Amino acid sequence: MNRTRDRPVTAADEHAHAWSPQTARARFREGLTGPTAGVAAGHTQANLIAVPADWAYDMLLFCQRNPKPCPVLDVTDAGSPATVLAEGADLRTDLPRYRVWQDGELVDEPTDARAYWRDDLVSFLLGCSFTFEWALARAGVPIRHVEQGRNVPMYVTGRDCRAAGRLRGPMVVSMRPVPPERLGAAIRESSLLPAVHGGPVHCGDPTALGIEDLARPDFGDPVAADDGDIPVFWACGVTPQAAVMASRPPFAITHAPGQMFLTDARDEQYRLVGID
Amino acid sequence: MNRTRDRPVTAADEHAHAWSPQTARARFREGLTGPTAGVAAGHTQANLIAVPADWAYDMLLFCQRNPKPCPVLDVTDAGSPATVLAEGADLRTDLPRYRVWQDGELVDEPTDARAYWRDDLVSFLLGCSFTFEWALARAGVPIRHVEQGRNVPMYVTGRDCRAAGRLRGPMVVSMRPVPPERLGAAIRESSLLPAVHGGPVHCGDPTALGIEDLARPDFGDPVAADDGDIPVFWACGVTPQAAVMASRPPFAITHAPGQMFLTDARDEQYRLVGID
Repeated sequence: MNRTRDRPVTAADEHAHAWSPQTARARFREGLTGPTAGVAAGHTQANLIAVPADWAYDMLLFCQRNPKPCPVLDVTDAGSPATVLAEGADLRTDLPRYRVWQDGELVDEPTDARAYWRDDLVSFLLGCSFTFEWALARAGVPIRHVEQGRNVPMYVTGRDCRAAGRLRGPMVVSMRPVPPERLGAAIRESSLLPAVHGGPVHCGDPTALGIEDLARPDFGDPVAADDGDIPVFWACGVTPQAAVMASRPPFAITHAPGQMFLTDARDEQYRLVGID
Repeated sequence: MNRTRDRPVTAADEHAHAWSPQTARARFREGLTGPTAGVAAGHTQANLIAVPADWAYDMLLFCQRNPKPCPVLDVTDAGSPATVLAEGADLRTDLPRYRVWQDGELVDEPTDARAYWRDDLVSFLLGCSFTFEWALARAGVPIRHVEQGRNVPMYVTGRDCRAAGRLRGPMVVSMRPVPPERLGAAIRESSLLPAVHGGPVHCGDPTALGIEDLARPDFGDPVAADDGDIPVFWACGVTPQAAVMASRPPFAITHAPGQMFLTDARDEQYRLVGID
């Protein structure tokens, strides 16, 4: 599968973490590309999967049946490039890079999706684990892929999602190496953000998920672990792309892995409240 | 609107809290009726809303856009009375009492829905706040309606849900009076169970929700509060019934308010993990 070769935006611009989401979207609209981990601190990032209206019920049901990989933040009206999550945003232009799919095959990776947009497309915006990285960092969990200026590594697992209508496929996970003394904090902080994948699906031995080699991710970049780090796996919003590959809907537009939509929402609004 | 006049099952049978969900479903299948608060301790209860397949996308989108009142636990295939949440259960017979709706009007309240079932019905099972009452009780929060042998009081609010396709309507809430010194525990424990409505939508003055008189609930029974109790309002799974009344789909079958479907799922499996 294709690897993302763009440089992370945070590595390309040391100020990217301080951008507003409006600034980030404007830069991406102008053509800036690259993984968005670390961009616009404290603002919620989202995965995009747009399918023809005829497939929208299957996709929404697939998300409902697989809430850890596919936590739905918004669903647009057919054809609309607007979302309640970001005032004035245009989903056709405001992501760094897109993937265009025909019959389950990747046919293009443009930075602007307007040439491919259709009036019957329903867009799903799904929570992204980049969102909880701020909470992890605050709790003392190192975010090694950001430290190393790389995209997060993502792996197709041997674990099947629950099928919905015509959609089926394996779960995709992202992986972060976590020192054992920070494992509790990593689990706690991500669990409190179920809208952005929540707690991990697995910690430790990657072969339990059917992952052969952590050094060869299916998407994103390999990340160097420190001695003693435990690999921690979270369900990933690239899962719908794996479902597109497995189920072959006639058409779909997604984000490129790691190159997310920046919303105006603040991570805190998805955090479960009232833990006293 | 109609009030539930059945006696609570827990008041009718002091052993009901110790029933297995299988036993509870068998009793309801035989014709036992009544509110299910306190039945089959530790097992997840669910609201039912079944609509024709032509309305299923609108309903699923309505749930996604209103996750606090409508947290989806399962969606069935069209026509199927089976659910992954309860092996061998039949959604047409295993609830204590149903409501049948035609063009938004309540036309019958049978204890068996088989005479009304249609092959194109898609059933939605939504989380119910009875589920978190066990967690509240463990944390020392009195459950006054159970103590008083009554159905929980429910109110139609002045707060509109976010519309989805042809579906719109007001949010319905349940209310529990909570002593101020237990308010933190009530918020914390329910917040950790987002699949069954999560944390409250409002505490205190009912007029802020457009509720005029706590003594006159729209569904269920009034409940007596102790001096100093604060009324705490949680989003309620009767909300789709209010949407049916407001939006008038040609046909729907729901549970009767407070008379829920008992699943085999354990409340703990919906609790967010890893709080250390």
